[in-house]
Amino acid sequence: MVQLYGDERIDFLLAEENMRIIQSESVFAFSLDAVLLADFTYVPKTRGKILDLCTGNGVIPLFLTTRSNVPITGVEIQERLYDMALRNIELNELGDQLSMIHGDLRDMPGYYGNDKFDLVTCNPPYFPTPKQDQKNLNEHLAIARHEIHCNLEEVIESCSKLAKSGGKVSMVHRPERLVDILTLFRKYKLEPKRMRLVYPKKGKEANILLIEGTRDGNPGLDVLPPLYALTDSGDYTPELRKILYGG
Amino acid sequence: MVQLYGDERIDFLLAEENMRIIQSESVFAFSLDAVLLADFTYVPKTRGKILDLCTGNGVIPLFLTTRSNVPITGVEIQERLYDMALRNIELNELGDQLSMIHGDLRDMPGYYGNDKFDLVTCNPPYFPTPKQDQKNLNEHLAIARHEIHCNLEEVIESCSKLAKSGGKVSMVHRPERLVDILTLFRKYKLEPKRMRLVYPKKGKEANILLIEGTRDGNPGLDVLPPLYALTDSGDYTPELRKILYGG
Repeated sequence: MVQLYGDERIDFLLAEENMRIIQSESVFAFSLDAVLLADFTYVPKTRGKILDLCTGNGVIPLFLTTRSNVPITGVEIQERLYDMALRNIELNELGDQLSMIHGDLRDMPGYYGNDKFDLVTCNPPYFPTPKQDQKNLNEHLAIARHEIHCNLEEVIESCSKLAKSGGKVSMVHRPERLVDILTLFRKYKLEPKRMRLVYPKKGKEANILLIEGTRDGNPGLDVLPPLYALTDSGDYTPELRKILYGG
Repeated sequence: MVQLYGDERIDFLLAEENMRIIQSESVFAFSLDAVLLADFTYVPKTRGKILDLCTGNGVIPLFLTTRSNVPITGVEIQERLYDMALRNIELNELGDQLSMIHGDLRDMPGYYGNDKFDLVTCNPPYFPTPKQDQKNLNEHLAIARHEIHCNLEEVIESCSKLAKSGGKVSMVHRPERLVDILTLFRKYKLEPKRMRLVYPKKGKEANILLIEGTRDGNPGLDVLPPLYALTDSGDYTPELRKILYGG
């Protein structure tokens, strides 16, 4: 059995009956955003390789093992989370497919060289700078949520360099940053090809953005059907239930 | 009574019981896109002025008179459509509020000077270049649908120059051009602030894009709730019916 530290617990990985994940409210617990990105993204099934930046406790690589047989590497800058991700590989006996790197995503193009991955996924920090009232926030959560160690442009530049020509980059972010994301994707030769917007419920503005680009792709964006998270009565919609719990 | 030419007919302007519009299948008939743009856009209600580029037979100015009391000018490059727009003003006795210019939108910043309008609306040609199989297309329709007299960048540059600082520019286009539109908006200092995507029905990709930017605005985009055009059984949805026919 793997070691647990502090308030860590072992949760089910939602629909994946045979998979478990170590997480912690005070350090890192995966969010709906990660689940949606793992569902949304293109994956190479049997050939190629995948890199997941800002991997946290490795939740996206874990999910992607259910959709792909290719090697998947996660990159995490926080040693505490990197260690959690390593134990998640061990807990699920996925050492043959998954690996983790403790490092800065900005160093990865130098480490791997350019033009190496068929898919790069990323659930980056969303918030440009920590606000005054978040100064006392737990450091682990602050780094995962705020652009402390990297900003959006650095994330996208790294994704672009790491992706092969014709390879994909998939990202989850906030719709309010859509213009920044699309302009930076294009600046770094990642042509946005697929987009999905997630709405908390009918009549509300979108609150989650899923976007996928192709390195050196041709212009032309598909806007996929919208996804509603909750019904009018506040339950998960059937479509979200299916993503979360299968069926 | 106003004069009608060729296959022109007088239609009801949808929900506007007291308004009529002259149109023609062979020259210009307004589309759902125009109705949706007139519904979506911000309008100055009692102060300021509005310019509608690519106005065709003046359909958007006609619709906007139901939402605003400010002067509205339409610009149309095709004399045949400009003439139709003039007769639409006459037919609806709206000469006090509406006026038309027969001209090229690219000349309007020179004609008016920069920084003049509280709102600029535009339903531009959608298709970059006429395809081989559209060579025989009726010239009036070809000019309205294809970037023959102006391309997207020229449209957005003109909109930007004509809008006041803090003024709005609203446009309807195809979602596949979203990346071009957002990058060009930002290039010309029109910060995208509101976006709505229209889907033909549930489970289908978006086919109409509504976008509004603010001249010299701050970053931060609101993605409004999606609009479905048709129900699963192929009827107009209640929300679209309301836009089309009121209620």
